[in-house]
Amino acid sequence: MRVGVLTGGGDCPGLNAVIRGIVRKGVQEYGYEFTGFRDGWRGPLEGDTVRLDIPTVRGILPRGGTILGSSRTNPLKTADGIRRIKENLAGGGVDALIVIGGEDTLGVAAQLSDVHDVPCVGVPKTIDNDLSATDYTFGFDTAVGIATEAIDRLHTTAESHMRVLVCEVMGRHAGWIALHSGLAGGANVILIPEQRFDVDQVCAWVTSRFKASYAPIVVIAEGAMPKDGDVILKDGTLDSFGHVRLSGVGEWLAKEIEKRTGKEARTTVLGHVQRGGTPSAFDRWLATRFGLHAIDAVRDGDFGKMVALRGTDIVRVPIAEAIAELKTVQPELYKEVGVFFG
Amino acid sequence: MRVGVLTGGGDCPGLNAVIRGIVRKGVQEYGYEFTGFRDGWRGPLEGDTVRLDIPTVRGILPRGGTILGSSRTNPLKTADGIRRIKENLAGGGVDALIVIGGEDTLGVAAQLSDVHDVPCVGVPKTIDNDLSATDYTFGFDTAVGIATEAIDRLHTTAESHMRVLVCEVMGRHAGWIALHSGLAGGANVILIPEQRFDVDQVCAWVTSRFKASYAPIVVIAEGAMPKDGDVILKDGTLDSFGHVRLSGVGEWLAKEIEKRTGKEARTTVLGHVQRGGTPSAFDRWLATRFGLHAIDAVRDGDFGKMVALRGTDIVRVPIAEAIAELKTVQPELYKEVGVFFG
Amino acid sequence: MRVGVLTGGGDCPGLNAVIRGIVRKGVQEYGYEFTGFRDGWRGPLEGDTVRLDIPTVRGILPRGGTILGSSRTNPLKTADGIRRIKENLAGGGVDALIVIGGEDTLGVAAQLSDVHDVPCVGVPKTIDNDLSATDYTFGFDTAVGIATEAIDRLHTTAESHMRVLVCEVMGRHAGWIALHSGLAGGANVILIPEQRFDVDQVCAWVTSRFKASYAPIVVIAEGAMPKDGDVILKDGTLDSFGHVRLSGVGEWLAKEIEKRTGKEARTTVLGHVQRGGTPSAFDRWLATRFGLHAIDAVRDGDFGKMVALRGTDIVRVPIAEAIAELKTVQPELYKEVGVFFG
Amino acid sequence: MRVGVLTGGGDCPGLNAVIRGIVRKGVQEYGYEFTGFRDGWRGPLEGDTVRLDIPTVRGILPRGGTILGSSRTNPLKTADGIRRIKENLAGGGVDALIVIGGEDTLGVAAQLSDVHDVPCVGVPKTIDNDLSATDYTFGFDTAVGIATEAIDRLHTTAESHMRVLVCEVMGRHAGWIALHSGLAGGANVILIPEQRFDVDQVCAWVTSRFKASYAPIVVIAEGAMPKDGDVILKDGTLDSFGHVRLSGVGEWLAKEIEKRTGKEARTTVLGHVQRGGTPSAFDRWLATRFGLHAIDAVRDGDFGKMVALRGTDIVRVPIAEAIAELKTVQPELYKEVGVFFG
Repeated sequence: MRVGVLTGGGDCPGLNAVIRGIVRKGVQEYGYEFTGFRDGWRGPLEGDTVRLDIPTVRGILPRGGTILGSSRTNPLKTADGIRRIKENLAGGGVDALIVIGGEDTLGVAAQLSDVHDVPCVGVPKTIDNDLSATDYTFGFDTAVGIATEAIDRLHTTAESHMRVLVCEVMGRHAGWIALHSGLAGGANVILIPEQRFDVDQVCAWVTSRFKASYAPIVVIAEGAMPKDGDVILKDGTLDSFGHVRLSGVGEWLAKEIEKRTGKEARTTVLGHVQRGGTPSAFDRWLATRFGLHAIDAVRDGDFGKMVALRGTDIVRVPIAEAIAELKTVQPELYKEVGVFFG
Repeated sequence: MRVGVLTGGGDCPGLNAVIRGIVRKGVQEYGYEFTGFRDGWRGPLEGDTVRLDIPTVRGILPRGGTILGSSRTNPLKTADGIRRIKENLAGGGVDALIVIGGEDTLGVAAQLSDVHDVPCVGVPKTIDNDLSATDYTFGFDTAVGIATEAIDRLHTTAESHMRVLVCEVMGRHAGWIALHSGLAGGANVILIPEQRFDVDQVCAWVTSRFKASYAPIVVIAEGAMPKDGDVILKDGTLDSFGHVRLSGVGEWLAKEIEKRTGKEARTTVLGHVQRGGTPSAFDRWLATRFGLHAIDAVRDGDFGKMVALRGTDIVRVPIAEAIAELKTVQPELYKEVGVFFG
Repeated sequence: MRVGVLTGGGDCPGLNAVIRGIVRKGVQEYGYEFTGFRDGWRGPLEGDTVRLDIPTVRGILPRGGTILGSSRTNPLKTADGIRRIKENLAGGGVDALIVIGGEDTLGVAAQLSDVHDVPCVGVPKTIDNDLSATDYTFGFDTAVGIATEAIDRLHTTAESHMRVLVCEVMGRHAGWIALHSGLAGGANVILIPEQRFDVDQVCAWVTSRFKASYAPIVVIAEGAMPKDGDVILKDGTLDSFGHVRLSGVGEWLAKEIEKRTGKEARTTVLGHVQRGGTPSAFDRWLATRFGLHAIDAVRDGDFGKMVALRGTDIVRVPIAEAIAELKTVQPELYKEVGVFFG
Repeated sequence: MRVGVLTGGGDCPGLNAVIRGIVRKGVQEYGYEFTGFRDGWRGPLEGDTVRLDIPTVRGILPRGGTILGSSRTNPLKTADGIRRIKENLAGGGVDALIVIGGEDTLGVAAQLSDVHDVPCVGVPKTIDNDLSATDYTFGFDTAVGIATEAIDRLHTTAESHMRVLVCEVMGRHAGWIALHSGLAGGANVILIPEQRFDVDQVCAWVTSRFKASYAPIVVIAEGAMPKDGDVILKDGTLDSFGHVRLSGVGEWLAKEIEKRTGKEARTTVLGHVQRGGTPSAFDRWLATRFGLHAIDAVRDGDFGKMVALRGTDIVRVPIAEAIAELKTVQPELYKEVGVFFG
């Protein structure tokens, strides 16, 4: 039995832990051999492979990124993509594929498995934690931890100068990172893509915070949007989820706050720092277990499935189902957290 | 409505986040007033109280420990304890009590609520994560993170000198911290209280690790015990769970490994460092939500209940039931992790 | 003896440690009393004071920011500023002033001490480490540590996608943070304000890094400037040091790299995160010792002086002299570090 | 030109950064070739070498430990040691040796260079910072940072239970780590090997701290000794510095404090965690510069010298002189810090 492994989409702390879990158990307990494919779907599409065995996964557990590389190549949008993949798998003697990726990458796996008879097992990867089939995805805890530490730091500088600090975190379509890091960091306002925000309400919270002699921290997801549709957007484009994307929403909001409240406001955009570096212990645990259970699914011949976390258990769900719906922040949960605003 | 709050047992990162959640929501949404009781059950027993309102909970979210203090005072073992508590609550106009603690502290709350008509709501606290009613308890993630970082550090010093490093972590009756930090830290052997270990097997793993030209890390819970009943214990006493406790098991094991394998072995006992300091983002999130839901239970008059985490939801379970059974590491999970041993 | 204390300019991790050192030694060993002035020079200018004694400095050692607040108010530019300060000091019975700040704040102290007979002792504060009289200033080590950790994280995400990552750090006129964090973080290019950079040379380094199958990290100080004077600047203004300031130089450079090399490039601007939060152990040590020696200078009546680090000793230098010249990165040191470029 | 490199003695964060600095500059600027010797002096003694070039030093900058391995092998105590080293160097075509180590390892280098005509350059390595010729040694800042973070954590747990926490840190003959981390961590008592301590004085400080309603933290170097010579030592042996070593002094002190004050006291022994893991930014900077300057000394033919830090400069000093005297904490500095005791 030879199993192919690939990682697609944006990188995420924990990818290497998944790969290590797959290979350690696959080799030691099931006697499998492995083929690493480079750069997501580009690997099987172009037959670009890399050695993958016990020695190559040594020491990678605490390392961020992915030893296999990643890309956003989509074989479904590539002429003859499916055929070329099937040929390259057959040519390399690859019997099954473990696909680690987000909804785009896994969408291909679902198609291959369900329609084209290529046995795939999926491992969910989204730093935004926006996949409905699983309680958490790895990488999310690390990103939240980094954002929380940054917010902790911003408090003291905000207080010293009695300034507003706006901290823009990741989250295009779902506000999980903003919500968790904002709550953990003691933010006074948290703005998420799921609910358009009212700038005047934000300014009211900011003002009330100053009245209590403290300086406000506003945490905003990069995909959050103002209610007022007529604001001038720097880069307003319609994406596949029907949202208008606002590039630089944090900076825009800081300027509005200055204008409307007369208080100094500064912006920090955390950016790529959130997705790099060593994974948290939680993410290493989750990612490793995803890897162990993915290879078990291969051994069970349980293809077209994705591993997922439910409570403290790892379960299997159909890939196609798992990626059908985005997991967004429920209005009640946002309301629950809202007690800390202002 | 006046609500009393107390924290009992060993301290745990996140206690202050719970208290803040309770008070912020209680005051702002329900208009409640609060009485803080000092040092666990000693507070209501002796009528020792402290002011608890919005200003007193400001800035405590990221701080470890508990602003209320803690103790292991048990009113059930105190002459006239229950009567004195009822008197002091009545005297202070306290209508309900939120009790944050482990199985001992909550045992009193269950008794008071179920038998003596004192309305209590419980919040689970055990850094060891050994409460069966909840997926996780706050403080655990922080402790695992600290232990994992320590294990990460031990690797490089072990490799440089080709020594065995034994790292003793918390866990008297349950091996959760050892299991999670050992897995996340890439330990080569993990020993937990749930399964007596075979020193010769440990030595075999140690030896095989050296053969691969790497130095082994052994993570051992403080409550782990060797199989061989006839070892000479430094401090062998029978505790309430029927286990023989071995003080200094890490150091004992390091010496056995040296003796049996001829390799140098060193011990590190992490100790109190694991329970102090700022809570992780995960623990701040969980602890805050526990606090918000505990005050909701008070408002709903849902007494005798404890808040608990199930998946990503906070639910309520009867206190008495919740503390009836210790949550230990299941044999299958230990076996799952065992693929990394050796 | 009553001593006034103020903190001016941008905040910096370690300010509270200085204040604590001053007060602990002043009260315990010399029996002094203290007056805290709020928000830098605004405090003595407007007679805005705050209590400052042993209880108010408890627990502030590990806290970033400043309990006294800060501002950029300059009494020399305020009508009647000097007279008002002298009146307010006399009115409050303040015999001497300890001034903690950067070149602007200390410039006032020098003037007051040397010309207006107001006894001042200075403590240097610049997160940029650009004061020539002292080996290091507190806050710098913390900022370098934060930037280094961020760069560590960027490596893994750069490698996974084979992208250029440009990391913009603090440093308007001196490149110390860029130089130290860039070296410590293993950056492939470091750009500082002291030497105008050649975009084509940067692109050559970037390209050669990709040839070795690694992705490049470019660390750039916010005040770094391209050689080519004819680039279109977003915000080109002439400042007091004769430099043209380029707002957003990191983002500008990333776009140029993309254009000239055809490689994807992304920018991260660390911003205010670098100056907030708990100070490093090094900065707590340095800041505390600065505080202890500043109060010694007051006791010795050694006014008009500033404390400074020389090797491992704290010495005193004339304030006026200390702030006369900016400490910039010497060409030989930049060349020494340049061995790691490309 | 072929240059040999070895690392001896206990490991220290930053060793790999030194090696990388040597090799990068040696190869790129001077065209040298390198031979790595394994496990300190054991390498040249037994002719055990390892490849050392640009590819082998890639990615090692942030990694603790040493890729060359280490040992305490002393060729001066080995029959025919010097002759065998000279033979192996000649046999391998090694023209000069860079020796990275503490006083024992460097003592051999001094002897070889000064007496036996083997050209050596030294790089100082002692995590204890106890070498008189240099302001700081790399690894020390990392160790102090780890100890400070641990002390930060102990505060909250001490306060919650109103207990004494004794934290034992490294430092057999010099108290630098205790002094720096104790000051930075806000300890209430710091005990160092340089001054025998009076247990009753310690108890007086402990008691006075409790009176201020705070719980005391006692930081003690592993080599600190009580004044009272007649205490029963667990492991009293006379070492080469004329000190009696007390194994487990932290635990012993905690018990004495409990006995004499009636307060609960707990001990934490930080141990090997202090010397492992990724070096701090400060240590990476210092270690890298030591490496760059060591290879410059080789190019200059300036043998028998050791690189050292003086202020912000790297200088060269005779090895023999540099290791002649231990750098211990001066009484005045200990007194300066003493203002925070109690």
